[in-house]
Amino acid sequence: MTNSLDILTINTIRTLAADVVRKANSGHPDRFVLSNGHACALQYILLHILGYDLTMDDLKQFRQTDSKTPGHPESHLTPGIEVSTGPLGQADGDNDLDGIAAAIEKAKKVTDKPSIIKVKTIIGIGSKHQGSEKVHGSPLAPDDIVEVKKKYGFNPEQFFHVPNEVYEYCKHFRERGAKAEAEWKQLLEKYCIEYPELGSEIKRRFSNKLPDNWTDHLPRYTPSDPPVATRKSSETVLNKIADVLPELFGGSADLTPSNLTRWKTAIEFQPESGGLGTYSGRYVRFGVREHGMAATLNGLASYGGIIPFGASFLNFISYGLGAVRLSALSCFRAIYIMTHDSIGLGEDGPTHQPIETAASLRALPNILFFRPADGNEVSGVYAAAIQNTERPSVIALSRQNVPNLEGSSVEKTLKGGYVLKEADGAQIILVGTGTEVSIAVDAANLLEKDCIKARVVSLPSFELFEEQSLEYRLSVFPDGIPVLSIEALSIFGWSKYAHANLGMRSFGSSGPYKELYKKYGFTPENTAAKAKEVKS
Amino acid sequence: MTNSLDILTINTIRTLAADVVRKANSGHPDRFVLSNGHACALQYILLHILGYDLTMDDLKQFRQTDSKTPGHPESHLTPGIEVSTGPLGQADGDNDLDGIAAAIEKAKKVTDKPSIIKVKTIIGIGSKHQGSEKVHGSPLAPDDIVEVKKKYGFNPEQFFHVPNEVYEYCKHFRERGAKAEAEWKQLLEKYCIEYPELGSEIKRRFSNKLPDNWTDHLPRYTPSDPPVATRKSSETVLNKIADVLPELFGGSADLTPSNLTRWKTAIEFQPESGGLGTYSGRYVRFGVREHGMAATLNGLASYGGIIPFGASFLNFISYGLGAVRLSALSCFRAIYIMTHDSIGLGEDGPTHQPIETAASLRALPNILFFRPADGNEVSGVYAAAIQNTERPSVIALSRQNVPNLEGSSVEKTLKGGYVLKEADGAQIILVGTGTEVSIAVDAANLLEKDCIKARVVSLPSFELFEEQSLEYRLSVFPDGIPVLSIEALSIFGWSKYAHANLGMRSFGSSGPYKELYKKYGFTPENTAAKAKEVKS
Repeated sequence: MTNSLDILTINTIRTLAADVVRKANSGHPDRFVLSNGHACALQYILLHILGYDLTMDDLKQFRQTDSKTPGHPESHLTPGIEVSTGPLGQADGDNDLDGIAAAIEKAKKVTDKPSIIKVKTIIGIGSKHQGSEKVHGSPLAPDDIVEVKKKYGFNPEQFFHVPNEVYEYCKHFRERGAKAEAEWKQLLEKYCIEYPELGSEIKRRFSNKLPDNWTDHLPRYTPSDPPVATRKSSETVLNKIADVLPELFGGSADLTPSNLTRWKTAIEFQPESGGLGTYSGRYVRFGVREHGMAATLNGLASYGGIIPFGASFLNFISYGLGAVRLSALSCFRAIYIMTHDSIGLGEDGPTHQPIETAASLRALPNILFFRPADGNEVSGVYAAAIQNTERPSVIALSRQNVPNLEGSSVEKTLKGGYVLKEADGAQIILVGTGTEVSIAVDAANLLEKDCIKARVVSLPSFELFEEQSLEYRLSVFPDGIPVLSIEALSIFGWSKYAHANLGMRSFGSSGPYKELYKKYGFTPENTAAKAKEVKS
Repeated sequence: MTNSLDILTINTIRTLAADVVRKANSGHPDRFVLSNGHACALQYILLHILGYDLTMDDLKQFRQTDSKTPGHPESHLTPGIEVSTGPLGQADGDNDLDGIAAAIEKAKKVTDKPSIIKVKTIIGIGSKHQGSEKVHGSPLAPDDIVEVKKKYGFNPEQFFHVPNEVYEYCKHFRERGAKAEAEWKQLLEKYCIEYPELGSEIKRRFSNKLPDNWTDHLPRYTPSDPPVATRKSSETVLNKIADVLPELFGGSADLTPSNLTRWKTAIEFQPESGGLGTYSGRYVRFGVREHGMAATLNGLASYGGIIPFGASFLNFISYGLGAVRLSALSCFRAIYIMTHDSIGLGEDGPTHQPIETAASLRALPNILFFRPADGNEVSGVYAAAIQNTERPSVIALSRQNVPNLEGSSVEKTLKGGYVLKEADGAQIILVGTGTEVSIAVDAANLLEKDCIKARVVSLPSFELFEEQSLEYRLSVFPDGIPVLSIEALSIFGWSKYAHANLGMRSFGSSGPYKELYKKYGFTPENTAAKAKEVKS
């Protein structure tokens, strides 16, 4: 039942919100005032009143540089904020708390489907402009704030005021929360005593600790192993590690047969009733829904104890970029397994062939973009993606086959870039990623026939390579040796390593991939010819 | 009424589809067979039967390099294909043609809202696997095709066969189309005689011809004009050209007061009934729907006679990237007016602050990305965006004020990059875009005090600059002079011009923009200091 203190608390929040927003006088046209649209300030005020480590001074710093109260909640920046909701906030209620409580109780009883509670609210309630977009678009005029405060029984001369009754009253929320937490911890300890193995497993997962020697299960290859598509090597990795890492949880956006992300022993995450799986299953049918899939991975990652992954064609990551960006901003270990990673996908043509995607992800902060060249590099890339618990990874994989290369290894892959094929007194360096690395190797062999010495560098991850020491990076790309890059994606961004580029300058086209590779110049012959022009 | 020839035609299409898809034997796992999911082959077969310039040999080249029948329809590549539908195709019907025709008639009668006709179909109808995903995932086995052909009354030994009755019967569709086209042309000529001025105006718009001297209406500025945000200069341009270019049609994704895209005389595109506008209005409320907005611009552009534009915050172009990509692939003049184009938007923080966006768009083929530095450049950018009828443009605009610069001009802007501030015997070049150009100018002045000569280059468009002659580009960036770039976005991609970069290497943060610019080093003082390290 609502009591007068509930109402007093709500009114305190409303008047406090008016002060907080006026203080943050940035002239920003899209600012939360008393509106229900943009609830950022409101969240901070609630955290303050509920006793989180957020002082009144912090509230006065709303939207100020390096404050605990940024314009939109960022996870890890503000005590009590666990998830960055992204560009959009959430809606607060009106005065009908009993109605809302009743709706929540009713929704709880629905266990076989999600429930939506529609809360009709009045924007800027209390202002003379209530119900108009004016109160979303700009702060209240001083006289309007005076009226709002009077209406809610506050002294207009008082600013940033919280009545002691409200602080006192809200204490019981804190106590309730502390009690619940203590009970949960007790329950966990009891469980750990009763089931020591399961208990330590739960603790392992929630502390993001990986099983000892789990990387021993990653497959390794030699050049005598048959050529396979890197999406196929990825399937092999998943089959090897799925049981070793029971926290691995994910699936594909309706492209499982193309992404090859379903391991042999996978059980679908489905209600028993459907007969397709169980809620203890770990393989998810996301549907053709890249944005929803990425947002789901963020939710799973923020919950903890889970290594979430999602899969689609690399080009379709564009449909989920808003949520992928939040994985990076929120420091979530979300793993994106993206196959069909170039014009090498062939017949589906330019609507499916990524061109700008790699540049977009390489320019995005706090995310690892990988394009492995063969089986060993795929194993290395999975090791890196899973061990980087504080950032997401995008693993770009091929539809077409590639040979297992002489000189590749899991360990070298972890450096992001390395010398795959050495040549004493190299006159040119050929650097490539993914499916183009083996073309570079063939080109180097052609050049050797013409007595031209070419070093081949594989660069599966710009980001990891740039985290290596300057000394190491210079050992891979020594001063004075010209560099030619080869990657079947946009050449944009390659200038930082290469003096000349073999890459895409247009959209691709539809056809068998070997013909397309020839059409766009991704052949050993053309690479060797270009190298001769560039070499010192 | 359905007749036997209708059925024969449908069955011909089905058996022909089986042959077409078997011929395109690419092993591609996501291929249209007889499925209703992936209707690409079907569209070509219809075009062939209906008499477009698409021969049986063209059909046999389905999904082959440089064929007229790529894996997914591309506009301008195949006679009769006017729009690239993108990664997804459309659904064909079943045998109940009368039912479908009736539904269409019924839908036509609904004039106040869109109608959806749900056509339940059986995937792979006719195959022994009909109704299963198998017929979506892989071509029919030879014996299955034999059965399908028998079932539809065709000779299994015959391939790529179209009965003459079908060709004959389908002639009447051609005749019907030709008649309709002739009637329309006649109507247009009649209209042009009756209303010569309106008639020539229609012809002007549909031929993408712009009014003579329309660029004379673009505002020009001198340094004595007051500093304004480039989004404000954009509003001024729209106010000047909206009446000169009646084909300009667009709006904002619920951010009109922030994007400043609504010109003074704008009338909203709304049903009369609502009282908010009329269907003759040219200003659109797209709603918070960036992807839908971009797709709408593509539809408007493909219709012709319209210069469509849409607006939002630059960072939110990520939500519509799939459709923006199709603007570029389809060679549509869609204009994206994207404001709040850097950390300079301030308090809204990193969820709203673009970092990787520019790199993503600069790596995308056939699209112009602009970041104008002042009023003259904004005018120049609009001239370029409107005159480039075969590709889309993204115009990145600032929330914060910038001065009108000495040396900027509409004409120089059209070159994509130019020397804004010359210095005899320059020891360093400072190159910037948008709001950072004026910071570079201030830095150059600081350097001058220390007797260091710095040239300032403004680079509003990488794409247009790279289309200039090598001679011109070398005149802007001569060999041997070190270059420092300054742009409040990801430094990724700048290596092609600059030896050192002042830019973003992380996400931004929430705060007043001047403090953020200081925090991340975008000040004249820091730029000058960095320049001293780089200069020769």
